[in-house]
Amino acid sequence: MPNEYRQRLAKLRLRLTEAHSDAVLVTHAPNIHYLCGFQGSAGILIVEADRATLFTDGRYSIQAREQTRQTGVSVHIPKGPILLAAAAQLGSLTTRRPPRIAIDAAHLTVSEKEKLVKAVGRPCKWISCTGWVERLRTIKSDSELERMKAAARLISSVFDQIINQIRPGIAELDIAAEIDYRMRKLGAEGPSFETIVASGPRSALPHARPTSRRLHGNELVVLDAGAILTGYCSDMTRTVYTGRAPDRVKRWYKAVLEAQIAACEATTAGVESRAPDGAARRVLDSYKLGKYFVHSTGHGLGLEVHEEPRLAKGQSALIESGMVVTIEPGVYVPGVGGIRIEDDLAVRDGKSEILTITSRELLEL
Amino acid sequence: MPNEYRQRLAKLRLRLTEAHSDAVLVTHAPNIHYLCGFQGSAGILIVEADRATLFTDGRYSIQAREQTRQTGVSVHIPKGPILLAAAAQLGSLTTRRPPRIAIDAAHLTVSEKEKLVKAVGRPCKWISCTGWVERLRTIKSDSELERMKAAARLISSVFDQIINQIRPGIAELDIAAEIDYRMRKLGAEGPSFETIVASGPRSALPHARPTSRRLHGNELVVLDAGAILTGYCSDMTRTVYTGRAPDRVKRWYKAVLEAQIAACEATTAGVESRAPDGAARRVLDSYKLGKYFVHSTGHGLGLEVHEEPRLAKGQSALIESGMVVTIEPGVYVPGVGGIRIEDDLAVRDGKSEILTITSRELLEL
Repeated sequence: MPNEYRQRLAKLRLRLTEAHSDAVLVTHAPNIHYLCGFQGSAGILIVEADRATLFTDGRYSIQAREQTRQTGVSVHIPKGPILLAAAAQLGSLTTRRPPRIAIDAAHLTVSEKEKLVKAVGRPCKWISCTGWVERLRTIKSDSELERMKAAARLISSVFDQIINQIRPGIAELDIAAEIDYRMRKLGAEGPSFETIVASGPRSALPHARPTSRRLHGNELVVLDAGAILTGYCSDMTRTVYTGRAPDRVKRWYKAVLEAQIAACEATTAGVESRAPDGAARRVLDSYKLGKYFVHSTGHGLGLEVHEEPRLAKGQSALIESGMVVTIEPGVYVPGVGGIRIEDDLAVRDGKSEILTITSRELLEL
Repeated sequence: MPNEYRQRLAKLRLRLTEAHSDAVLVTHAPNIHYLCGFQGSAGILIVEADRATLFTDGRYSIQAREQTRQTGVSVHIPKGPILLAAAAQLGSLTTRRPPRIAIDAAHLTVSEKEKLVKAVGRPCKWISCTGWVERLRTIKSDSELERMKAAARLISSVFDQIINQIRPGIAELDIAAEIDYRMRKLGAEGPSFETIVASGPRSALPHARPTSRRLHGNELVVLDAGAILTGYCSDMTRTVYTGRAPDRVKRWYKAVLEAQIAACEATTAGVESRAPDGAARRVLDSYKLGKYFVHSTGHGLGLEVHEEPRLAKGQSALIESGMVVTIEPGVYVPGVGGIRIEDDLAVRDGKSEILTITSRELLEL
């Protein structure tokens, strides 16, 4: 891994040079993690052409040195606020003209920027590095793909363990607690987002939080959960029916499954990232269910559960080999219920691979 | 509750008037929750003298209207980004001079501010409302105190259930999973922060994340966990010894417990918020352990797990009736182990009350 971090820092330095910038201030924790391995909640990484410096606080002094070992990053634990220490380093840059400093406006608050500008104490040219590291992160290395596969296998195992425990009378919150418990027993660091268990009419809410509602018989239940394993996220959804599904529900399920398969097949290196979304929508439209598909088809996945690219209408970014995305079309009939099927897909030059391996067939419990 | 939200909005409007401001843009989710009850992850609340408007997206259309019912807040679900819709409303304010708009620089990114300024499309005077709502939040109402008491009781029950399961051979991560599972089975929405289980030499790291390390015999184990119940956080720490504690450990434990009791007693309405910290430090100094107490004594607690006030050196804000704070001194001996004891304390005019009720005596397992 140290070697991989060095490569990532080298790629960021290319951007730095292209932008004629003297330093990049990295303030988004997943970006810092990606560039040097540090996983603390408080850190600022300054990358310059010939050195990289991580500022963090005393809580992380041991951890920061361990995690960044052999990456060439030097760790500083200042006495005072890390932002001021970072500012002091930027203020002492030796440049002939006012230094050009790249900051991430999407991950720096207005008040942090004000403090920074004041503490640097000399004229600077502030440029934007928003998206620089996120762009690098979209393309996973082989070792990252292995980790993502393991995270996806883990959440698949949780679903396989849990699915037969679902029956009328159990509360949504209890199922969610069970899912989270099992993922951690299997070694996950934790859930990659708040686990969704949405039953009956609540399954028609795409982002329902689990409640104390107890499952009834003969209703839809949407289960959406992901695990973080060695830093990487998985994200998976299955929908079950508590009873024998009526024809209407079977037809909806068939439509969503066909849409999901079509979107998976449309997700190949070289296509625009709106293509999978279009493929899913065409299938659902053919079933006259298009109007019930109220969100986009998927998103990139990695150190964060929502990353670039977005698989949605109007998105023209190219899908590339090495990307990992979710494919998750759904239909949501207000007042009745919803169905969503979601897998994680690794895009390769040749054949893409679905990483989540739980059966996609409708389960009638 | 609707009435309580109306009162909070009225208090914020007083600040608005005092600051000669035409509108406050509330962008920090816990502040929005506090002011109008909305608990979604994406929202912007604009409070003006005579109206309040919540902007959120389609995922939350049902939830937002339910949660803000009878608060007088109107919910808007724009087609596009909520920031642009909020900007449009600010742009259409009818004021004779350029409108004075209060923003929270601590909870608005540089890029959000840039988009906002551009989209408002007219000259404005931007003033700061950082801390306005946080200040209101420090003083809990009776109904909030009841919720916080319930959250504290819940985490106390979890500790009581779990503590006898701790024995050599169990991994830190398994204990953490068990704690989180049990809090959810007792009705918690989830942990209020990532549960800490730190054993042996790792207990000397105040913010250790649980690892796969298995507990040994004859070592210290620090357990630090909190639950969110009906929106409110608890936060509690106990330290146990896996075996019969040697005299040295008993002496450390006695010192921390005395320091914790002294700090609890020093936390009364009317004192400065450095007083409890001073009380804890004096006790630890008398045991010659002051240098091992490497963090501050406590912090406010409520909708967030870290709120105002900070109980630390140099803090002069007054402790007031209605505040809820943690009291959590500790000693951390590098390479050997650490001890921390933490309770949640509600400050009243007369007698303060400890909300977490698990025994503070050293448990030798």
